[in-house]
Amino acid sequence: MIEPFDVVDLIRAKRDGGELTSPQIGWLVDAYTRGVVAEEQMSAWAMAVFLRGMAPREIRDLTFAMVESGERMSFAGLGRPTTDKHSTGGVGDKITLPLAPLVASFGVAVPQLSGRGLGHTGGTLDKLESIPGWRARLSNEEFLDQLRDVGAVIAAAGSGLAPADGRLYALRDITGTVECIPLIASSIMSKKIAEGTASLVLDVKFGSGAFLRDPEAGRALAETMVRLGRDAGVGTVALLTNMQTPLGRAIGNANEVRESVEVLAGGGPEDVVELTVALAREMLALAGQPDADVAGHLRGGQAMDVWRRMIAAQGGDPDAPLPVPRESETVVADRAGVLVDLPALPFGIAAWRLGAGRARKEDPVAHAAGIDLHVRIGDRVSAGQPLYTLHADDPARFARAHEALDGALRIGADGDPVHDGGPLVLDRIA
Amino acid sequence: MIEPFDVVDLIRAKRDGGELTSPQIGWLVDAYTRGVVAEEQMSAWAMAVFLRGMAPREIRDLTFAMVESGERMSFAGLGRPTTDKHSTGGVGDKITLPLAPLVASFGVAVPQLSGRGLGHTGGTLDKLESIPGWRARLSNEEFLDQLRDVGAVIAAAGSGLAPADGRLYALRDITGTVECIPLIASSIMSKKIAEGTASLVLDVKFGSGAFLRDPEAGRALAETMVRLGRDAGVGTVALLTNMQTPLGRAIGNANEVRESVEVLAGGGPEDVVELTVALAREMLALAGQPDADVAGHLRGGQAMDVWRRMIAAQGGDPDAPLPVPRESETVVADRAGVLVDLPALPFGIAAWRLGAGRARKEDPVAHAAGIDLHVRIGDRVSAGQPLYTLHADDPARFARAHEALDGALRIGADGDPVHDGGPLVLDRIA
Repeated sequence: MIEPFDVVDLIRAKRDGGELTSPQIGWLVDAYTRGVVAEEQMSAWAMAVFLRGMAPREIRDLTFAMVESGERMSFAGLGRPTTDKHSTGGVGDKITLPLAPLVASFGVAVPQLSGRGLGHTGGTLDKLESIPGWRARLSNEEFLDQLRDVGAVIAAAGSGLAPADGRLYALRDITGTVECIPLIASSIMSKKIAEGTASLVLDVKFGSGAFLRDPEAGRALAETMVRLGRDAGVGTVALLTNMQTPLGRAIGNANEVRESVEVLAGGGPEDVVELTVALAREMLALAGQPDADVAGHLRGGQAMDVWRRMIAAQGGDPDAPLPVPRESETVVADRAGVLVDLPALPFGIAAWRLGAGRARKEDPVAHAAGIDLHVRIGDRVSAGQPLYTLHADDPARFARAHEALDGALRIGADGDPVHDGGPLVLDRIA
Repeated sequence: MIEPFDVVDLIRAKRDGGELTSPQIGWLVDAYTRGVVAEEQMSAWAMAVFLRGMAPREIRDLTFAMVESGERMSFAGLGRPTTDKHSTGGVGDKITLPLAPLVASFGVAVPQLSGRGLGHTGGTLDKLESIPGWRARLSNEEFLDQLRDVGAVIAAAGSGLAPADGRLYALRDITGTVECIPLIASSIMSKKIAEGTASLVLDVKFGSGAFLRDPEAGRALAETMVRLGRDAGVGTVALLTNMQTPLGRAIGNANEVRESVEVLAGGGPEDVVELTVALAREMLALAGQPDADVAGHLRGGQAMDVWRRMIAAQGGDPDAPLPVPRESETVVADRAGVLVDLPALPFGIAAWRLGAGRARKEDPVAHAAGIDLHVRIGDRVSAGQPLYTLHADDPARFARAHEALDGALRIGADGDPVHDGGPLVLDRIA
């Protein structure tokens, strides 16, 4: 086969701040998928994109080329609307767990393809795998059957969807090219477009525990993704949400499932409930039910019913006891005052070091490892009051977790500014 | 082995415009050599360096780390001074061929490790391989014996010298990270320092046919390399020379050997003689003979004697006929006037396309292919006068060579500015 372009020319063009044409981008992704463009060439290109950026038209071309690199699913034959949600990831972000059954309890299908955690942000599949018997990998037929019968599925994305993105994502992870809006947006949206959902709500996070610290960078990412969704015919709305401080009280896997079940039972931490309800409203509005009584289905048990059926359909026992940690250590306040700083990032890193996350794709996670917060930002504490408890299976892991948290949580005086990052939902981009 | 650094942290630091510490750079090169840092990681780092630059201290650390990645030669036991020359490469640059025997004719040892051509600049070894029987690869013992007996050796660099540079150079070639001063300087100087020469003259080219178009970029490269040589204890001088128009009349392999022999016989084109003499003077001055009668050894035949012994010592027959091309095509002037433009780059590309150079490392070169110029820039020409002749073994190659040259050579009127790039030797940096 005679190749129409030379990859070195394309890398140099981007390196020098130029734009690639649509045929050039289409060829680049296709040639990468075919192995004609080597990993080292793609990583040099990704670094050039990181430092030089991409025009909106280039981002769209890249996204659609990655969609075209694999198969596309379709839920057209399902006979009811589909809606999905994607979060850019944060610390303690278990929202998918209560959200998918909650939305499905209104008769809307939620086909949720999720990933595993890498680094300091947890993975939805890792959390659900703390439930004895539950399995993430479904055949296409099982997936569709469950979507029809239960309405909600949370499962592993097969490697057939946007395979070029799968390879590029793995490459970016090891080459320092992750935090780049054009590459993040095209990665997320190519998978979601290939997945075939009719509508999509994006939870774009900013702050200490998010990939993007700055709300304005989060807004730029949200706008880019909403535009990509619109161009692909997927109704897309984004909420710009605050990840300055951890979401809820539980950071880990089994403890996040416990907290999600509390929310499904009508309780749970206020912020987790608020975000679950806000996202559910957006998803249901896109699916044609703008006036659904979302909070009512948490209090009334309808969401919990779907949760139990969803877990059982994937082999899990919703009543089985969740794993408990072998070792725990509690940290107490050294003085009285107001909790003025409780940043998400060090807590995410500490939970990861305790075994809740993985350093390499092949690593297992310790399902009982993680952190339970006993206080929230802005709380008044007294000297000696428990602040948080670390959990691990291996006590050797405590030292480096404590190290990550050293100086992170700050107790101030009345009237000191509280670094909570502002409101939980900062903006809505549609 | 526990690694002291995480390569992703180092890539990100450079990506964000930071400086790496000496231990970080030492580790990076060592880990790359050991295979712990992957090619795709090194290419992302190289692109970050391309776009963010390196501080002088980082360049020095990189150079010395690449020297340390392999063996170092030593000529301490030779009993006479050694000196070497490196050119950054240009079109028609055959200077090494007359220069090495000329300098050796004064009793100074010239251990010249050379490379093969890639892209539009030719390779010294490719040129010499047009001589029947001549071989580029010598054992260490053969190399030292010849240096002692003949005084001049031009041979292939073994893979044991600065192997990290060898791998990084190949990687840069396919990832669009070639034209970058920190990476060019460290690549050249790591090989030359490992080679063990006591002194070094650099021919740093600027203009249309050089890697660096702009004289100021050439000067910056020269200054960087002279500083690296000084830091390594190698007496180093650079000449900043003009590569706007081809050097001499021959561009290719066998025809460049013919032109070199003309110079060794006391004739040859003025610019080739001028540059050969200028570089020889610098080399001999560094070796302790500032007043050597360099031009006299060209006219007197002493340089030719060493050339014949040098070729014969490596199996070549200095009297054997050189390969002749199967096909030739001559281009004539379409009108009378003054030759105001004769840029090196299109002629280099055309010679490459005719078969004189290679597109991939594994490709062979056609030794008789290339271009002979019948005119020089600034010459007055009449309509119908031959301008240049293309040579190839395969006539199918003419079309793309003509295409490269289309519009390159321009005939103007009396008084029009002549784009010769100025004097041949623009500056001396020591």
